[in-house]
Amino acid sequence: MDVKELKDIVLQANLLLPQYGLVTFTWGNVSQYDPETGLVAIKPSGVEYNSMTADDIVVLTLDGKKVEGRLNPSSDTPTHLELYRSFKGVHGIVHTHSRFATAFAQARTAIPPLGTTHGDYFHGAIPCTRDMSPEEVSGEYELETGKVIVECCPDYNNIPAALVASHGPFVWGTDAMEAVHNSVVLEELAAMAWITRTIRPGAEEMPAVLLDKHFFRKHGENAYYGQK
Amino acid sequence: MDVKELKDIVLQANLLLPQYGLVTFTWGNVSQYDPETGLVAIKPSGVEYNSMTADDIVVLTLDGKKVEGRLNPSSDTPTHLELYRSFKGVHGIVHTHSRFATAFAQARTAIPPLGTTHGDYFHGAIPCTRDMSPEEVSGEYELETGKVIVECCPDYNNIPAALVASHGPFVWGTDAMEAVHNSVVLEELAAMAWITRTIRPGAEEMPAVLLDKHFFRKHGENAYYGQK
Amino acid sequence: MDVKELKDIVLQANLLLPQYGLVTFTWGNVSQYDPETGLVAIKPSGVEYNSMTADDIVVLTLDGKKVEGRLNPSSDTPTHLELYRSFKGVHGIVHTHSRFATAFAQARTAIPPLGTTHGDYFHGAIPCTRDMSPEEVSGEYELETGKVIVECCPDYNNIPAALVASHGPFVWGTDAMEAVHNSVVLEELAAMAWITRTIRPGAEEMPAVLLDKHFFRKHGENAYYGQK
Amino acid sequence: MDVKELKDIVLQANLLLPQYGLVTFTWGNVSQYDPETGLVAIKPSGVEYNSMTADDIVVLTLDGKKVEGRLNPSSDTPTHLELYRSFKGVHGIVHTHSRFATAFAQARTAIPPLGTTHGDYFHGAIPCTRDMSPEEVSGEYELETGKVIVECCPDYNNIPAALVASHGPFVWGTDAMEAVHNSVVLEELAAMAWITRTIRPGAEEMPAVLLDKHFFRKHGENAYYGQK
Repeated sequence: MDVKELKDIVLQANLLLPQYGLVTFTWGNVSQYDPETGLVAIKPSGVEYNSMTADDIVVLTLDGKKVEGRLNPSSDTPTHLELYRSFKGVHGIVHTHSRFATAFAQARTAIPPLGTTHGDYFHGAIPCTRDMSPEEVSGEYELETGKVIVECCPDYNNIPAALVASHGPFVWGTDAMEAVHNSVVLEELAAMAWITRTIRPGAEEMPAVLLDKHFFRKHGENAYYGQK
Repeated sequence: MDVKELKDIVLQANLLLPQYGLVTFTWGNVSQYDPETGLVAIKPSGVEYNSMTADDIVVLTLDGKKVEGRLNPSSDTPTHLELYRSFKGVHGIVHTHSRFATAFAQARTAIPPLGTTHGDYFHGAIPCTRDMSPEEVSGEYELETGKVIVECCPDYNNIPAALVASHGPFVWGTDAMEAVHNSVVLEELAAMAWITRTIRPGAEEMPAVLLDKHFFRKHGENAYYGQK
Repeated sequence: MDVKELKDIVLQANLLLPQYGLVTFTWGNVSQYDPETGLVAIKPSGVEYNSMTADDIVVLTLDGKKVEGRLNPSSDTPTHLELYRSFKGVHGIVHTHSRFATAFAQARTAIPPLGTTHGDYFHGAIPCTRDMSPEEVSGEYELETGKVIVECCPDYNNIPAALVASHGPFVWGTDAMEAVHNSVVLEELAAMAWITRTIRPGAEEMPAVLLDKHFFRKHGENAYYGQK
Repeated sequence: MDVKELKDIVLQANLLLPQYGLVTFTWGNVSQYDPETGLVAIKPSGVEYNSMTADDIVVLTLDGKKVEGRLNPSSDTPTHLELYRSFKGVHGIVHTHSRFATAFAQARTAIPPLGTTHGDYFHGAIPCTRDMSPEEVSGEYELETGKVIVECCPDYNNIPAALVASHGPFVWGTDAMEAVHNSVVLEELAAMAWITRTIRPGAEEMPAVLLDKHFFRKHGENAYYGQK
C-alpha cells in the first residue's frame, strides 16, 4: 500500500470516532500498520477532528522514527507501536475515552461476557490492566502502557480490546476500520454490562457453551454468519 | 399479497430499526409471514442497513426452503420460523440487541409491569426464557431458541415479546410494522423499568386491576382508545 | 380568544412534545382552557404527531360536551377537565409518559427538591398520588384520575405538576405553552434527582431557605430574575 | 480589546452552551473579563439563546456598575464578579445546570479524580462548596455564592471548577472559550464518575503519580501534549 493510501485510511478512520460518538474534542486516536512497508500512520497530537486533513497524519517506522508529517504524532504513539510489535496480525488500533468503557477502566473492572452481543465479538471477558507502578508512570509512560496491555492480553486475537486501569480502552483489529468497528461494539457492551449489573448485581457470566457458540458462529473456519 | 409487496414491507420494516435507534451495525432483523401464500420474507444475514434493497430480502417457506433471494437469510431465521409455526395470528417478528431490553435479557430478569405504559401494550410481565441446555446450544441452536421462547410464552397474543436469556429480545405482532412498533415500546419499557427499580429497588408491580384497565382500554372488543 | 386561535395554540403545543423528546409515538397530550369562552381544546386520541392539523384538535366545554372536531378527544380528557374545574388560574395541561418522570411515578415516589433547578420552578416536592382503589379504576377511571391529582395537590399554584402512581406525570401552567415548558423542566428534574440519589442514596433535600430564595427570586411580587 | 469584540466573544461563548447540550432553556451564562479595560461582559438574565444578539450582552465594571446594555445582566453576575476579583488570571467563567455535574452538586459530593480524563484537565478532586448559612442565602445571595466558591478553591488555577452545593457547577479558564471547553469536560467527567461508582461503589481515586503525570503532560513548562 502506498503511504498516501495509508494516510487516507487513517484519516477516514479517525473521522469516524466523532461520528460514532466515541470522542469528546480530540480525545482519541486511530492508527494503522502496513506490514508491506513496515510503516505506521497515526493521528497528530491535539488536532481537532473537523479541520484534520490527510497531510496532518504522521507516518513512522515501527520503532518510532518519523518518516512523514510536519506535526507531532499522538502522545499515545509509543503505546500503539508496542502493540504492533507484540500482537501478530493486529494492523489497526484505536484509543478513546468513550464514556462507558472508560467507566469500567476507572472502576478497574473487566467487562464480563454477559450475553451473545459480547460473544459475537469477544471470546471472553475484556480485561483490565494491573495498576502501573510509580516507576512505569514516571519513566517511559506511554511505552509502559503498551507493555501492561500486552501483559494482560495473551488471547489478543480472540479478545481484541483491553481497558487500561484508571485510563480507558485500547481496541484493535486486522486494520483501522475493524478496530473502529470493535470500538463501537466495546462501548455498547460496556453500556449494557453496566445496566445489566444494576438491574441484578450478581448477574452471572453467560454459559461457556453459549459464548463458544456465538464466537465461533462468526469467527474461524466453521463460521456460518453473514455472506460467504 | 404478491412476493414483491411482502419484500418491500420487510425492507421498510428493517430500515426502521436504525431510525428508531434499536440497532448497532447489522444487529437486528425483521420478518413477515404471509398466510395466503405461506411465505416468509426476512433480512439477509450480516448486510448493512444503508445499502440494503428489496432484492436482498430472502423469501422462504415456513419449513425453511428458500424460494427467492441470492443471499443467505438471517442466521436467526429458524427462530423466526419456529415462532410463526407456533404462534397463531403472529405474522411479524423483530429481533434486536437494543440496549435496555438486552440488559434485562442478560440479567435473566423478566420486565415487570410497573406502570400503565407497560399495560397499554403488554398484559403482564415480559418473560425471560430459561437457560438453554448445552445440548440445545450445540445442536440446532437457532431452532431451539425458538422453542424456548414458545415454552415461556403461553399468552403470546397478549404479551407480544420475550427476552432470550443471555441474548436479547424477540418481539412480534400481527405484521412486521406492528412488531417494530412493539419493539420500540419494549425498549422504552425496559429503560423505565431499570430506572424505576434503581429509584426504589423494591418497587412493586402495578395493581392487576390497573393493568387490566389499560390493556383492555386499547385491546379487545371493549377498547375505547383512539379513533374507530 | 376565538376557537381557531385556541386550536392553533393547542396544535403547536402538542407538536412541541416530540421536539422536546417527551413522547414516544402518540403517548402524550396537551390542552388549553380559555376562560373567556369556557372552552377547552385538546389533542385527539391516538393520532400521530407528524400528520396532526388544527382541524384534528377537539373542542369541548368544561363539562365535556364536544363543540368542534370530528375525532374523539384524548382518552385522558376527563382528567384534564377535572383539573381545570378544580385548579383556579390553571389554563394549560400536559400529560406525557416521559422517561424519568414516569419512572418516579412507577416507583410511587415524589421528586424531592434537591437543588436550585427544582426550586426555580417548584416550591417543594412534586407529589405522587395515592394508589387508586379498584372501584376508582373500574369506574369513571379518567375522571377519578383527575380527582386523585386534585387530592394530593393543595399547593397547585406553586407546584405545577403531579405524578400519578404507576402511570406518569401531569403538568400544568397558566397556558398550554407554560405547561409544556414545565414538562421539560420536570423531566430534567426527574433525571437529575435519579442520578443524585444514585451518587449518594441519602442525599438530603435542599435547605428550605434556599428553596424559598430561588422560588421567590423568580415568582411573586419580589421576583428579580429576568427582564421586567 | 474593544468592547464590541468582548461582547462578540461572550455572545459566541454563550451560544456554545446549547450546542454542547449543557443547558435547558436559559439555564446558564458565560462571561469574560478584559483586564486591559477592567470590563466584564455577561449574558442578560432570562433571554433565550436562539434570539440573543451581541447588543443583548451586558457590560459592567468589576464592582458591578453597568457600562453598556439595555437589559438586566444575569442574576448570577455578582458571583462572576466575585470570582474575577479573587482569582488572578481567570478571565472567563461559565455557570450551567448541566445534568451530571448538577447531580454531584445536589449530592453535595466532590467529583473524585478517577482516571486520566480527569487528570488531563483537573489536578485533583473538583470540590463541592459547604452549605450556605441562612444569613448568606437571605442576604446578598449571589455575592455570597461567589465567596463560598472562593473559600473552597485555593488551587483554582489547577482545578478550574467547583460545584455549589444544592445548586450546580461554576467553571472558569483564561478566557470564555476555555471556560466553555472546561464545562464540557466537567460534564463528561461527572457522567463517567457516576457510572464508575455504580459499577464498583468503592472505586478508588487514581494514583497520585498518574494524576501528576497526566496533568503536567498537558500543563506547565514540561508539557509535551499537542503541537508547540
